[in-house]
Amino acid sequence: MTRTVYVNGEYLPEDRATVSIFDRGFLMADGVYEVVSVLDGKLLDFDGHIERLKRSLSELSMGNPLTDEEYLNVQRTLIENNGITDGMIYLQVTRGNPGDRDFAYPPEDTVPTVVMFTQAKPGLADNPAAKTGWKVISVEDLRWSRRDIKTVQLLYPSMAKMEAKARGVDDAWLVEDGQVTEGTSNNAYIVKGNTIITRALSHDILHGITRAAVLRFASEAQMKVEERSFTIAEAQAADEAFITSASAFVMPVVEIDGAAVGAGQVGPVATRLREIYLEEMRKAAV
Amino acid sequence: MTRTVYVNGEYLPEDRATVSIFDRGFLMADGVYEVVSVLDGKLLDFDGHIERLKRSLSELSMGNPLTDEEYLNVQRTLIENNGITDGMIYLQVTRGNPGDRDFAYPPEDTVPTVVMFTQAKPGLADNPAAKTGWKVISVEDLRWSRRDIKTVQLLYPSMAKMEAKARGVDDAWLVEDGQVTEGTSNNAYIVKGNTIITRALSHDILHGITRAAVLRFASEAQMKVEERSFTIAEAQAADEAFITSASAFVMPVVEIDGAAVGAGQVGPVATRLREIYLEEMRKAAV
Repeated sequence: MTRTVYVNGEYLPEDRATVSIFDRGFLMADGVYEVVSVLDGKLLDFDGHIERLKRSLSELSMGNPLTDEEYLNVQRTLIENNGITDGMIYLQVTRGNPGDRDFAYPPEDTVPTVVMFTQAKPGLADNPAAKTGWKVISVEDLRWSRRDIKTVQLLYPSMAKMEAKARGVDDAWLVEDGQVTEGTSNNAYIVKGNTIITRALSHDILHGITRAAVLRFASEAQMKVEERSFTIAEAQAADEAFITSASAFVMPVVEIDGAAVGAGQVGPVATRLREIYLEEMRKAAV
Repeated sequence: MTRTVYVNGEYLPEDRATVSIFDRGFLMADGVYEVVSVLDGKLLDFDGHIERLKRSLSELSMGNPLTDEEYLNVQRTLIENNGITDGMIYLQVTRGNPGDRDFAYPPEDTVPTVVMFTQAKPGLADNPAAKTGWKVISVEDLRWSRRDIKTVQLLYPSMAKMEAKARGVDDAWLVEDGQVTEGTSNNAYIVKGNTIITRALSHDILHGITRAAVLRFASEAQMKVEERSFTIAEAQAADEAFITSASAFVMPVVEIDGAAVGAGQVGPVATRLREIYLEEMRKAAV
């Protein structure tokens, strides 16, 4: 089936969905994005993602081209038109097409480019990997320093993902100055006793929407949350490890650089947090 | 006049030149580029730019879609079709359009995207700024760590350029660990006595094609070249400063962070190097 996608106000078949070669998203990586998960045809934490989108745009002095309601309407239309039950909606906003290439930003009245498309992932919440856990390797974090802005500068995460694949594992944890920053497209956590440890928010990491929800649910479930950096060695010696992201939800990590984490099996904290997260998010889905 | 541009084997009017929204250049900044200058309708240091293009592609495990001769033929066709006497040709290669979005690279048989377009700049070699020099500010270098690969991840250089504009100057010099790396889209130099000082090649800076030529010409002209890092304070205390890039050639820098460099005027070394560079490059142009 040909997907219907959204480009600048139009609904188009995916093979006719294009942007200008002069789009600053294509020439300059001058764009930001969000991925919202869909379960049972409904959007998970839509408000959180749109709030972060607005923050990303604002940090880059870009205008916000649509209202919250317009984003919601387009996403709902795409879900319906493409018959999505479980999956994701990808949303990208760029500084638009100024008609030529220049490092300087184009005039403020340049119309931003808005692209949205669905990705069907039947059984997204029942990913069998959640039962066995991910294996990860560590690689040096070579990304730019403003990872709190969710830009399309994704080449290095992509390279790290390929390095992980080449080494037969599921993902890479990025390490800077000896401390884990995050995964290629997810936030990283370890569990020691009743304490969940994850790096504090700063420019160094993405301010995960799933992270915020999971930490809230963890506190509500009487778990202790410590926001601080940790090393790979500390992670390998932890009881459990896991990641969170909008599309993987809570995913256990059972091996880091070839060393088993805890018993080398999916642990109770990650399992419980995944259950709570999915339950609460389904309830609040729009 | 509507430009004719090149996209994947086709010559198109610029307003019909598009790429898929699924192009990895648009979604992931998974692409590299080159800019070749044109003087008197001929290409400057074409071989050097194509060699660097191939290195960038290779560092990212991307295939090279065209032969050297094909790149040359397209560039010559664009120069002719657009009546370019002086200006630039921009060339971008991305990992292509796999039909959907994924951090993992697409299958190796995915066809890369190749885009080329001209930018007319009448009087490019007679830029009056070369007589008065640039003013620059310093900003922290927040880019990713593989600046030797000429990728389209240009958001930070773009932000730095805007910061420079906002502060009423021409460009920004990027500083990391207290040492200048380079300008937003050019290599940085200072002159002390008869010695030209510029940062040594590494992953930290672009391996400038103009840089290589200028250093060769400097040595031939009996100037001493020292490849080492320097601070903003050392640059401010130097006799001269300048930058090199494919389109600015050799451009004097007369002020850094509000402090005059040397006499605060365009100096003899930068002036002489610019003359030699333009003379030699015109001779060798294709």
